[in-house]
Amino acid sequence: MKVIIAGAGFMGTSLGMAIARAGGEVRFMDRNSEHAELASARVGKTFEGVGDLFVAAVPTHSLSQVIDDAFQQNLAMSFTDLGSTKTNVQAEVETIGAAERFCGGHPMAGSERSGPTGARSDLFEGRPWVITPSEKTNPASLALVRELALSVGALPILLTPEGHDRAVAEVSHGPQVLASLLASALQRVDDTHLAIAGQGLRDTTRIAGSHRDVWAPILSTNGAVIAAFLEPIAEDLHRVIDSLKAGDAQALGALIARGNVGRERIPGKHGSTTREYDQISVLLPDRPGQLALLFDIFGELQVNVEDISMEHSPGLPAGLLQLSLPVGRGAETVEALIERDWRAFTLSG
Amino acid sequence: MKVIIAGAGFMGTSLGMAIARAGGEVRFMDRNSEHAELASARVGKTFEGVGDLFVAAVPTHSLSQVIDDAFQQNLAMSFTDLGSTKTNVQAEVETIGAAERFCGGHPMAGSERSGPTGARSDLFEGRPWVITPSEKTNPASLALVRELALSVGALPILLTPEGHDRAVAEVSHGPQVLASLLASALQRVDDTHLAIAGQGLRDTTRIAGSHRDVWAPILSTNGAVIAAFLEPIAEDLHRVIDSLKAGDAQALGALIARGNVGRERIPGKHGSTTREYDQISVLLPDRPGQLALLFDIFGELQVNVEDISMEHSPGLPAGLLQLSLPVGRGAETVEALIERDWRAFTLSG
Repeated sequence: MKVIIAGAGFMGTSLGMAIARAGGEVRFMDRNSEHAELASARVGKTFEGVGDLFVAAVPTHSLSQVIDDAFQQNLAMSFTDLGSTKTNVQAEVETIGAAERFCGGHPMAGSERSGPTGARSDLFEGRPWVITPSEKTNPASLALVRELALSVGALPILLTPEGHDRAVAEVSHGPQVLASLLASALQRVDDTHLAIAGQGLRDTTRIAGSHRDVWAPILSTNGAVIAAFLEPIAEDLHRVIDSLKAGDAQALGALIARGNVGRERIPGKHGSTTREYDQISVLLPDRPGQLALLFDIFGELQVNVEDISMEHSPGLPAGLLQLSLPVGRGAETVEALIERDWRAFTLSG
Repeated sequence: MKVIIAGAGFMGTSLGMAIARAGGEVRFMDRNSEHAELASARVGKTFEGVGDLFVAAVPTHSLSQVIDDAFQQNLAMSFTDLGSTKTNVQAEVETIGAAERFCGGHPMAGSERSGPTGARSDLFEGRPWVITPSEKTNPASLALVRELALSVGALPILLTPEGHDRAVAEVSHGPQVLASLLASALQRVDDTHLAIAGQGLRDTTRIAGSHRDVWAPILSTNGAVIAAFLEPIAEDLHRVIDSLKAGDAQALGALIARGNVGRERIPGKHGSTTREYDQISVLLPDRPGQLALLFDIFGELQVNVEDISMEHSPGLPAGLLQLSLPVGRGAETVEALIERDWRAFTLSG
């Protein structure tokens, strides 16, 4: 596949690298010629002439202009974009008469990084790629965008442009607003109180670290849809505040229970990790080579580590390693580690 | 130190193990005699007679009864608890005339686990332990609780009972309510929309998986304080919904910016990880022994892995390992890995 990518930023360059890895050819365009050169150098395989597919990988506010230009110059057979909202782009594309050859898209991958330097060819692997054909989109354009997504290892998901915008309002834009509101309220909290914050506050506010320049256009473009998602939450919040003032344990317990049910509806590994694996933890002395020693033991025991994470306790001489092992292997592995003078613990119980 | 712990659950047993490790002696009490026996067996060092300190490690609703009984029987010189709210316990303690010998506490550590089996002697290491003396608390009792916290590796933080309850409303209970409300709203979201959820939604709703039985009493006990924290957020939410409806990019950008500022006020490693380390990522083939091979290479290169996490892409043949290396070691390590036919990437840029 011959792909023209307008925008040699983090997303565009990562896409180009992934396409080249899958055997495709890529030509970059960017107002910043250094970015275009660097991206081209990282990707290698380029081509001349008309492309199969034109990908607009530019910020929201430039999307329609970039697609319009490419369409007027007839740069490719079909056109797509990577924008975070879809109905607005769709409307623009219909205005310029490009609707048949356009099929919008939105890969659910990204990063706080920008520019071509940090781009990664594995960015899209295993990630959903929402594809949003309109009623006017021709089958060839839809097929090309689908092929693009599959070729870079993404999982294509078909939604209408309207369905997409509602979905991202629900799973991304709405949560972003709530995280930013909560983090914003921390401005009014004493330092001594923030000192006792745990992982819960860090998790719930992590995305509040997002960039204003990225999010202001997304939130304003999809504003009405996000507002529709948040309004019932605002009503719920008032009811919960009343329950809190009344000390109504039953109503507050019901809120937690409803949250449990909603939380379990999110697909993915995070809901099921504890059921699928034996969890063990190992204290890791803060000396070089300890992980290597540990994994040599796992090799000797022929136990496969399915997941791993490390918790540092600043100022203490040891980190805590959390490991997921195949079911049934946890207890014996801990025993074997303890025999070898490691401090290891099972976490089930 | 001789410590009597009432409640051989996850917290109480973990505390007992930590005390024993630090050289102290522990006696457990629990209505569930199997739990008390198991906890005693894990800890080993017990004692007879009066304790230096009595620790009530029971659920919120039983705290005052357990402290009352222990005080009437004069089981120890001083008394403390591990409860999640403090003004209510303080009020009860004053009613029974135990205020001088009581100094409340709340270690900011925990887990979704329960029972003595999964208890961990390192649970409190590096964690804040809020200590809440009242004006009546005698110096010996305050000193004992402080010594207890220090001996198990925790970081003592002094707050008044009222200050504590406000702090946990701000950094824990309020975020819990918002996470549960957001997760609860996911009940109204289509499966096809949830399929595109990313890490942001998982992070913001993780604590919505908390147990109703734990949280209903906490939220109802501290309800008025939590409501006072949430009311301005509810007002902000209405203003943001108006901005969303108006598509007011400037106001929405200002929200994100305020969130950035609040987020940066949270202390801890999570705000600064990316600055302190070189981040690299390595694709890990789904075959046994790959981690061992990898860490052998790190040993050979004499590079110390400071942090590690693994991202599984379900259905794909490789996981993505994220590693933090000492500053300056990232690029050369990636190069060395690529020379050895690993797929490795630097993440800075």
